[in-house]
Amino acid sequence: MGGPLILTLSCADQPGITARVTSFLYERGCNIIEAQQFNDRAGNEAGDRFFMRVAFDPDGIDSGRLGAEFSDFAKAHAMIWKLARQDRPCRVIIMVSKFDHCLVDLVYRWRTGELSIDPVAIVSNHPREIAIRSDIGEIPFHYLPVTPGTKDEQEAALRDLAEENQADLVVLARYMQIFSDAQARHFAGRCINIHHSFLPGFKGARPYTQAYERGVKIIGATAHFVTGDLDEGPIIHQDVERITHADSAADLVRKGRDIERRVLAEAVRLFVEERVLINGNRTVVFRA
Amino acid sequence: MGGPLILTLSCADQPGITARVTSFLYERGCNIIEAQQFNDRAGNEAGDRFFMRVAFDPDGIDSGRLGAEFSDFAKAHAMIWKLARQDRPCRVIIMVSKFDHCLVDLVYRWRTGELSIDPVAIVSNHPREIAIRSDIGEIPFHYLPVTPGTKDEQEAALRDLAEENQADLVVLARYMQIFSDAQARHFAGRCINIHHSFLPGFKGARPYTQAYERGVKIIGATAHFVTGDLDEGPIIHQDVERITHADSAADLVRKGRDIERRVLAEAVRLFVEERVLINGNRTVVFRA
Amino acid sequence: MGGPLILTLSCADQPGITARVTSFLYERGCNIIEAQQFNDRAGNEAGDRFFMRVAFDPDGIDSGRLGAEFSDFAKAHAMIWKLARQDRPCRVIIMVSKFDHCLVDLVYRWRTGELSIDPVAIVSNHPREIAIRSDIGEIPFHYLPVTPGTKDEQEAALRDLAEENQADLVVLARYMQIFSDAQARHFAGRCINIHHSFLPGFKGARPYTQAYERGVKIIGATAHFVTGDLDEGPIIHQDVERITHADSAADLVRKGRDIERRVLAEAVRLFVEERVLINGNRTVVFRA
Amino acid sequence: MGGPLILTLSCADQPGITARVTSFLYERGCNIIEAQQFNDRAGNEAGDRFFMRVAFDPDGIDSGRLGAEFSDFAKAHAMIWKLARQDRPCRVIIMVSKFDHCLVDLVYRWRTGELSIDPVAIVSNHPREIAIRSDIGEIPFHYLPVTPGTKDEQEAALRDLAEENQADLVVLARYMQIFSDAQARHFAGRCINIHHSFLPGFKGARPYTQAYERGVKIIGATAHFVTGDLDEGPIIHQDVERITHADSAADLVRKGRDIERRVLAEAVRLFVEERVLINGNRTVVFRA
Repeated sequence: MGGPLILTLSCADQPGITARVTSFLYERGCNIIEAQQFNDRAGNEAGDRFFMRVAFDPDGIDSGRLGAEFSDFAKAHAMIWKLARQDRPCRVIIMVSKFDHCLVDLVYRWRTGELSIDPVAIVSNHPREIAIRSDIGEIPFHYLPVTPGTKDEQEAALRDLAEENQADLVVLARYMQIFSDAQARHFAGRCINIHHSFLPGFKGARPYTQAYERGVKIIGATAHFVTGDLDEGPIIHQDVERITHADSAADLVRKGRDIERRVLAEAVRLFVEERVLINGNRTVVFRA
Repeated sequence: MGGPLILTLSCADQPGITARVTSFLYERGCNIIEAQQFNDRAGNEAGDRFFMRVAFDPDGIDSGRLGAEFSDFAKAHAMIWKLARQDRPCRVIIMVSKFDHCLVDLVYRWRTGELSIDPVAIVSNHPREIAIRSDIGEIPFHYLPVTPGTKDEQEAALRDLAEENQADLVVLARYMQIFSDAQARHFAGRCINIHHSFLPGFKGARPYTQAYERGVKIIGATAHFVTGDLDEGPIIHQDVERITHADSAADLVRKGRDIERRVLAEAVRLFVEERVLINGNRTVVFRA
Repeated sequence: MGGPLILTLSCADQPGITARVTSFLYERGCNIIEAQQFNDRAGNEAGDRFFMRVAFDPDGIDSGRLGAEFSDFAKAHAMIWKLARQDRPCRVIIMVSKFDHCLVDLVYRWRTGELSIDPVAIVSNHPREIAIRSDIGEIPFHYLPVTPGTKDEQEAALRDLAEENQADLVVLARYMQIFSDAQARHFAGRCINIHHSFLPGFKGARPYTQAYERGVKIIGATAHFVTGDLDEGPIIHQDVERITHADSAADLVRKGRDIERRVLAEAVRLFVEERVLINGNRTVVFRA
Repeated sequence: MGGPLILTLSCADQPGITARVTSFLYERGCNIIEAQQFNDRAGNEAGDRFFMRVAFDPDGIDSGRLGAEFSDFAKAHAMIWKLARQDRPCRVIIMVSKFDHCLVDLVYRWRTGELSIDPVAIVSNHPREIAIRSDIGEIPFHYLPVTPGTKDEQEAALRDLAEENQADLVVLARYMQIFSDAQARHFAGRCINIHHSFLPGFKGARPYTQAYERGVKIIGATAHFVTGDLDEGPIIHQDVERITHADSAADLVRKGRDIERRVLAEAVRLFVEERVLINGNRTVVFRA
């Protein structure tokens, strides 16, 4: 039964939509803890779009029954929606290649209870030694090497793993392999990548070297959903730091590690708290 | 008639409050443009407190009638509330002493239409020459000098001026005189000061010299409501900038000018857009 | 006679170069106030490169004679160098199109003595009305309209103006015309542009619209030297600010104005204090 | 023999001091890699003060002999100075109480080679379990509990440990016991504390609760040298982050952890790279 629930939804904007949703909850005795909404007036041929996140105390109502009732309501308003239990940790697969700073950071935040995740698997295209500096303990580690010839199989193995473990989210924590289009589509909206540049600057490989060569005075990192368009998916979070002419490309890599790990951790936190809604190629992020 | 209205309110938290407010508006054909709420669970003897801001299109309903109807509703829920017209500029008195950078900045933002204010008066304890670098044009300038012996009169003159001009807000744009307790109470909740430090550090006089002597590595500025407790009123907005050992106290003053003017302008913008609600000695700030 | 001098230089790195330069000054009784150096070890076919800035009190030595003597010394070390008088304001031409926020800001900083510039001319491709909100007073305003057919003449007129006025610097303060290659070469190293994006992201036109459409979470501005490659010149300074999904493209424009004016003012300050040295397509910036 | 050396010094400002130091090195065949200086013109009764840091390649000269020769030179100029080997890791004792995020972070940065430290001991007033989430491996762990009655002994034990291990630096990585005056004096200039507030705001205990109650809009952390005056020692580094009314005191603690660990790590990095010179109650920090 009951801890708080989180309802997220989007639909075409329509009169009284806030009143209807909040009345639906009120009539069932639910008590709103936190609510945010956003009307995207930029519009398009389909008109304005409405986004909402409501965290509420269901006051003893079964979340299954509530969900069933809301389903009818949602259908009538052509909503995309989700009802999540706040106390249920997000089941996460963490993927990593050679650099372990994001992995170490996510694992630490999980161990301290800061991130409400359940790391169901760590996957790497490198052997387990990659993870020795992190306290991964009992988290299953899967070594899934990949070559051009085995990419299809390897991607299938990840999909199987995700299904077996009922993973809610795949986090590319400096995983340096590029998903095929099909794989990106399969994990659409539930795969977050950390790109080590302030996108859209310095897409592709070796962004710190590119940044050094261009002589920028600020570097950054970007957490975004993975799509078939490399480095073009909806951006969830970004952060930056000031650099100077005296910073070598290696200094940028060092400074970048700090930015990357905090940007990725924040994006994962926002996702697991159901604060990120996709709006075409952009995101709506409902911070507390 | 006409343009969007902004409803702000606070009351004791109670079940269904969001639903009731949004339904009240929906039943009268109002269309919500933007809505935010906050439940302050820190509580106190009086229990949790609920804050809300709703911007909506009244769809032809007279704002006077709507206000009258909401008044009854609000009374029933023991609300503190306000219904404002978004298209009505906030009537502002700007007070200044010797440093004009905040005045110049506010006037520029008004002239470009960025700040929806109507500057009904500029008041200074120094003669008009103080304002020569700003394009104050037709804004009435009032020279209200003050000495220990004339402070009471001078403060009365400001109160008269505010009343005659129906001022909604008094902005202390580096006005270096301290309000008496009575004056601070008179303008409670409608007088914003810019303090040239990152409060609560370096209260009182010469904060940049204090910051220099303490050797801090970051300086800042704070916009807050004026209360009888000097530099202790509810904080609306703050910002900071990095400094180094090579910055002299004069450098801090120069860098501080930039921080001060943008912090004050942002606080004024938040206030005139009805985004700042007072919560005891703190503020709730509903950004878009 | 008189005030402090500033020596800036770059040359191939060589043993004892710091000792030689500082001894040269010491032997002539000059007293160093501030000194910075940078050895660019990234190297290239020509080897490492050395950069230095020394501010010093010449202790009564004539700057002309000192310059003549240093000239021989510099030749022997194949230096690019400059000896500037700190108390001589930089002669600046400010160019502007429709948006006046950077112009207003630079003029204000000049009037308050914050920026050590001598604004010898304001040039616009729009009539004088563009500058009415700034306190340009006695600064000569030149209306130089431009059409595809008159671009050559117009650019020649600017060159003449710069020569007549012995301008040290041309500042493109939101001047929306693109220099021809020849013009860019003519003003190489002495023309600063403010680009309203965080380069290299969103080059070209309408960067805020591009930023909005891409859904970035941070926007910025970039001050750079103008070169023939549009938006590709050496970057002097950048700054950024956080935005959210709720910011419209118009909000980005508004927030951007604040970033642009402070980034441009800082770049001009760094230039006029001789703190910016060009290093290929990058800059060395010696902050105090 | 040798890798690069780092010379740091301070003395009364005097004509030609830069030339003399750099010539001293040049005459001995040393090649400067990086050099910074600062003349503190704020002065006091003793006049202006000069600070310098020079990293150089000794070109085969024995650092012992160089130090001996420099010692005479330094005496003649009444210098406080130090000659350090860049390739010799700083011997560090890390002290921790219950919160391990700074410890975990420092250990990780050591393991990846980012921080050039040699962690000779971890000391806690709590048993070893405190460190289970960090990969402390072979680093000796010392449990030194403390009660009012045993404080003197416990402090003596730390002094012994520091001496036995020839520790260069003691890092209070959220060590919640206050050093006695004598202990603070003993470790003067070689003990860094992380305070979980943006000093000088919110000194003393429970700064995040204080920050929450005051309603500030930005929180921060401060790394400083420990002195007998609690939270008043010379500040090395600070950083901040924006918060809102919706952040509870617990949220501030969570956000604060990220700021604390990066501020402390940066302060330790600056210290071990010999970039921090003490200037009375302030610091000179020579960043690259």
